Amino acid sequence: MECFKSLFQPKGVAVIGSATEGKLGNVLLHRLVEGGFAKVYAVNPKAKGIDEVQGFTSVTAIPEKPDLAVIASPAATVKDVLEDCGKAKVKAAVIISSGFGETGNREGEAEIKAVAEKYGIRFVGPNCAGIMNTHAYLFASLEETPPTGGVALVSQSGSIGGIMMDWGEKEGIGFSKFISYGNGSDLTIFDFLNYLKDDPETKVVALYIEHIQNGREFMRVLKEVTKKKPVVLVKAGRTESGRRAAASHTGSMAGVDNVYDAAVKECGAIRVNNLEEMFCLCKAFALMPTLTNNRLLIVTNSGGPAIMATDKADAEGLSVKETSLELKAKLKQYLPVHASLGNPVDITVEGTAQWYKQTIVDAMAEYDAALAIYVGTPYLEAMPIAEAIAEAAIQAGKPIVSDFHVGLDIDESIEILRKAGVTNFSTGERGAWVLAKMLSYYKYLQKPVKVLEPETNMDSLPEGKVILEPLGMKILQKNAIPTPEFRFIQDIADVGEACQQIGYPVVMKVVSPDIIHKSDVGGVKIDIYDEEAANAAYLHLEQIATGKDFRGVIIYPMLPKATEVIFGINRDPQFGPLVLFGLGGIYSEVLKDIALRIAPVDEKCALEMIKSIKSYPILAGGRGQKPLDVAGLAKALANFSRLPFIYPDLQEADLNPVFVYEDKVMAADVRLISKK
Amino acid sequence: MECFKSLFQPKGVAVIGSATEGKLGNVLLHRLVEGGFAKVYAVNPKAKGIDEVQGFTSVTAIPEKPDLAVIASPAATVKDVLEDCGKAKVKAAVIISSGFGETGNREGEAEIKAVAEKYGIRFVGPNCAGIMNTHAYLFASLEETPPTGGVALVSQSGSIGGIMMDWGEKEGIGFSKFISYGNGSDLTIFDFLNYLKDDPETKVVALYIEHIQNGREFMRVLKEVTKKKPVVLVKAGRTESGRRAAASHTGSMAGVDNVYDAAVKECGAIRVNNLEEMFCLCKAFALMPTLTNNRLLIVTNSGGPAIMATDKADAEGLSVKETSLELKAKLKQYLPVHASLGNPVDITVEGTAQWYKQTIVDAMAEYDAALAIYVGTPYLEAMPIAEAIAEAAIQAGKPIVSDFHVGLDIDESIEILRKAGVTNFSTGERGAWVLAKMLSYYKYLQKPVKVLEPETNMDSLPEGKVILEPLGMKILQKNAIPTPEFRFIQDIADVGEACQQIGYPVVMKVVSPDIIHKSDVGGVKIDIYDEEAANAAYLHLEQIATGKDFRGVIIYPMLPKATEVIFGINRDPQFGPLVLFGLGGIYSEVLKDIALRIAPVDEKCALEMIKSIKSYPILAGGRGQKPLDVAGLAKALANFSRLPFIYPDLQEADLNPVFVYEDKVMAADVRLISKK
Repeated sequence: MECFKSLFQPKGVAVIGSATEGKLGNVLLHRLVEGGFAKVYAVNPKAKGIDEVQGFTSVTAIPEKPDLAVIASPAATVKDVLEDCGKAKVKAAVIISSGFGETGNREGEAEIKAVAEKYGIRFVGPNCAGIMNTHAYLFASLEETPPTGGVALVSQSGSIGGIMMDWGEKEGIGFSKFISYGNGSDLTIFDFLNYLKDDPETKVVALYIEHIQNGREFMRVLKEVTKKKPVVLVKAGRTESGRRAAASHTGSMAGVDNVYDAAVKECGAIRVNNLEEMFCLCKAFALMPTLTNNRLLIVTNSGGPAIMATDKADAEGLSVKETSLELKAKLKQYLPVHASLGNPVDITVEGTAQWYKQTIVDAMAEYDAALAIYVGTPYLEAMPIAEAIAEAAIQAGKPIVSDFHVGLDIDESIEILRKAGVTNFSTGERGAWVLAKMLSYYKYLQKPVKVLEPETNMDSLPEGKVILEPLGMKILQKNAIPTPEFRFIQDIADVGEACQQIGYPVVMKVVSPDIIHKSDVGGVKIDIYDEEAANAAYLHLEQIATGKDFRGVIIYPMLPKATEVIFGINRDPQFGPLVLFGLGGIYSEVLKDIALRIAPVDEKCALEMIKSIKSYPILAGGRGQKPLDVAGLAKALANFSRLPFIYPDLQEADLNPVFVYEDKVMAADVRLISKK
Repeated sequence: MECFKSLFQPKGVAVIGSATEGKLGNVLLHRLVEGGFAKVYAVNPKAKGIDEVQGFTSVTAIPEKPDLAVIASPAATVKDVLEDCGKAKVKAAVIISSGFGETGNREGEAEIKAVAEKYGIRFVGPNCAGIMNTHAYLFASLEETPPTGGVALVSQSGSIGGIMMDWGEKEGIGFSKFISYGNGSDLTIFDFLNYLKDDPETKVVALYIEHIQNGREFMRVLKEVTKKKPVVLVKAGRTESGRRAAASHTGSMAGVDNVYDAAVKECGAIRVNNLEEMFCLCKAFALMPTLTNNRLLIVTNSGGPAIMATDKADAEGLSVKETSLELKAKLKQYLPVHASLGNPVDITVEGTAQWYKQTIVDAMAEYDAALAIYVGTPYLEAMPIAEAIAEAAIQAGKPIVSDFHVGLDIDESIEILRKAGVTNFSTGERGAWVLAKMLSYYKYLQKPVKVLEPETNMDSLPEGKVILEPLGMKILQKNAIPTPEFRFIQDIADVGEACQQIGYPVVMKVVSPDIIHKSDVGGVKIDIYDEEAANAAYLHLEQIATGKDFRGVIIYPMLPKATEVIFGINRDPQFGPLVLFGLGGIYSEVLKDIALRIAPVDEKCALEMIKSIKSYPILAGGRGQKPLDVAGLAKALANFSRLPFIYPDLQEADLNPVFVYEDKVMAADVRLISKK
């Protein structure tokens, strides 16, 4: 969008708001000037400027028109300020002023939006902490000023930006852009993501969000970004969102936070738990080359920290595999006899700079990344070691992380490492974790992204909340979800023939929109072996429905014993239809061993879901049992997941249970609930 | 022990080793002198001293006898050095020199131990990084010198100490003692723990271990320490130890690292994953008052970080409960209208020092702890806020943690907080986690510690690895572990009578020391309804054992269907007998839903085990099912866990399955393996 040029590379910036010391406007002016931005103008009723910045009473009075307005004047004045901006042909604004929607003043927010629209002004905010573009010396924000670099941070919360950039400043980790979007009244997170996707200065996008309005659109945009660069994300409010009352049986097993997890994972973004993790990953992605496989070499001068790092690397799926015989032979040539040549390679407390360097260079022929641990002594310099590792990293061209501690010049050493693209962490475990996450992003990029065409054969459901079982079964059959053969009869006279056609023994269930949990009221009769029993069952079921809307009975064959699974569909307010899968009974309900995805899923993704549950071995066979029809199950699950798109009125659905055999699957029950 | 006075409060210290610059001995001398220790002597062949430290050729030559020797001379000289020390009546030594057991020189290590014993010298090391007692200005170590304070660190690895104390130095967190014990040839971790337990300068003990020789003794000592002060522990080498081949079926489900987890938990020590967690907890325990309940108030000037901290607090079991109406009324009197009065209390970006203070003081009437989050701006001072929170903490007398970011004087602010016992963390999440761990220690102290008397009625097992099922069942009965009635017969002529006595239908199993997995070879016949079938079954089982050592058959009644659980006993090389519990089949084997404890357990602990598995709801009833006999199960499990103490030859045991009914439990199979 054109407005982003005016936002991030403006020709001139007007700061609207009091320039008196201690006021926001004054602070913003100082930060812009100190940041090195040339054309800054102060706008306030007294036309007060600061130092070399000239003051004006209105944006319209500035002779050389600025294209960006940074507004920090009281909420009540913003509307008029925007009018002036419009007249002065300002193209973009950052509205820092608060006192709009967030305090209940929705009308005020609508008004400023209307004025901006009238003049074609696009804006960030209101109620935000501003924006930065370090590469253009633009610091239109109250937050800490970070060095120039490759991390772009988009945050719903300004203070999160303050913390992250403060760390950046302390550790010398550079940022490209900072965007605090506050109420996001005009430009939204989607716009910012779209912009950053193609921003050449941005290597990694950090995202702090508390809530998302349109989950599907978020996913669409996020997938576009992660195709090009990594996204690291904190979604706060895990427990708060859990308050939402669960809508259905399977829904209650999902949990809203899990929906975010599933959505973010599908999009290839990396969700982290806190700002420390976010910062660690951002610096890794910004500084290091791509990690393409999982073989990690650890080189250390100290045992303890290396053991802990090995534990963590193992746990995160990296391979700390033993060094090869060839590599051992090489290492033996220069490492001392008491060094450990396995992995970790322990070059002992006497470890020299040259040993660190040569070990890394030699090892990188058969490893994909290295962790260099150095624990020094308070009276020695770490710099020679750091310089050697830096050289090794440049020579190797692979991701090297470090864990440096104790020394006369430890901070400078870490800086030398950073300049060579070696990222230092406070523990080796963090380094290992970071590498594992980098690898997960690389692996995501290797897989085709799930793109599902919108359904073209849409269909409608009949009126009424509960879809009766016979129609439910028909809908399943129509959509290639296997069901047993069945007959729906509404007259006892038809019982004999229907049972004959199905073949004894049969099962008979009551059909009534008033009876949802049939088993609970005795509405299911099994083991019906002859016509007499069938007639008796019919009468019994009719009697159960006394006083209720009895529509008849549905007759199935008695199915042989099977492993039972559950399919579920539920709708999330942000992300729309979800699909759930789990084993029947205790596994789903007590052990919460459930797979959840944003619907629909294709067969491949359905298969991943099935394999992702802990109790998958029950389906996979082994221990004297033959494997069950997992392929058929995946096909049925994929087809099932499309139902809410084929039937837009479908609110929720449960197939509980689906019977799984060695050669087939079969929905043994169906419950579809319509929105209407 | 007396030696600890000489170790930690020596009258004089001799450093044995070259005093030439760059040598260990020289560094140690400098560190002792710079640390402020008065009576230091240098001992080396050239009698070289440094600055005001006088040099001698031998310890015996020192006129005023030192009681502590710090030895850094080459391994080969240590024996003679100790001889001299003995003659000079030195009472304790710290042997930093390496080149003993750790490099295979076990003989050398035995020699120095013998000399030390001869003269009654107790020593730390060899191959260690030294010791410190900050309260006596004693820095007999190569590692970073920390401030004086309440954290004692005992570490198998010297560099771990270096890292921890470097952090301590940077953050102003004080240490009382540092002990790097290296090979632990004489004084062991048990001695150090015993000493630190009663050390008045030590408020919290940090422990880094890689392996423990005697797990039971470790537990005994650890329990003594945790009665008096908290212990925070890192046990490294999780995956390495996992390599141990599993000895039995249930053993393979345990995993060695889980044994450490169970042992440490039973002793009330807090096992953490890495040094960062260890450091955070140590500073919390050293600085803050005791946390006695879980109600946490969060006060913040910024939304995002408070939401994340709330999520974490919730996840860790703290209650971030809504403020009461009374408290809200109080807060309303001074907080601005746009402040959030719930919990977190958000006093907004304009939050003043006074608001922070008053909110904490007022809230502490109904909360047990507070987290104060402050995200400042780069151009303002945080000090007034810090001072106010410090005052509030002193007034409240309850644990207050902080999460301070960004400001002109942020480091000084954090120092002011620390001096008032307010512990600052890099994120609010860490603060919440720390509080949760503090609470877990307090809760441990409230519970009686499991003390089980040694068994007095010891018994022996017959010769032979496999105990036959009839004897196994008898052993269970003798130890009050319920079994079904059974008959063991060795002649087909007895079949009819035995079955009659049991009552049809019966089950018949082959008895042979050569057939362990009976079902796999068809060695179990069920559904035997009459004598004819019983005779046929006997012949069949006899035939199965053709060529094997057939001892007869065991006959049980056909038991009604039941919920199946597994009991297991296994021996760990470090911790001895373990007891395992899980649900039968898939739950234990696939879902690894197992409870593990160090055996024996009493009924209360057995009940905790049973309730700790995820699939416990299957036993607890509900959903239309009656609860099963969990009390009986706990009793049986407790009795079972005592078997390896009653039968010291018992190597392992499996009851798989145990049948659980509403009113009873019954071991349906038994497998006991003897050591002999």
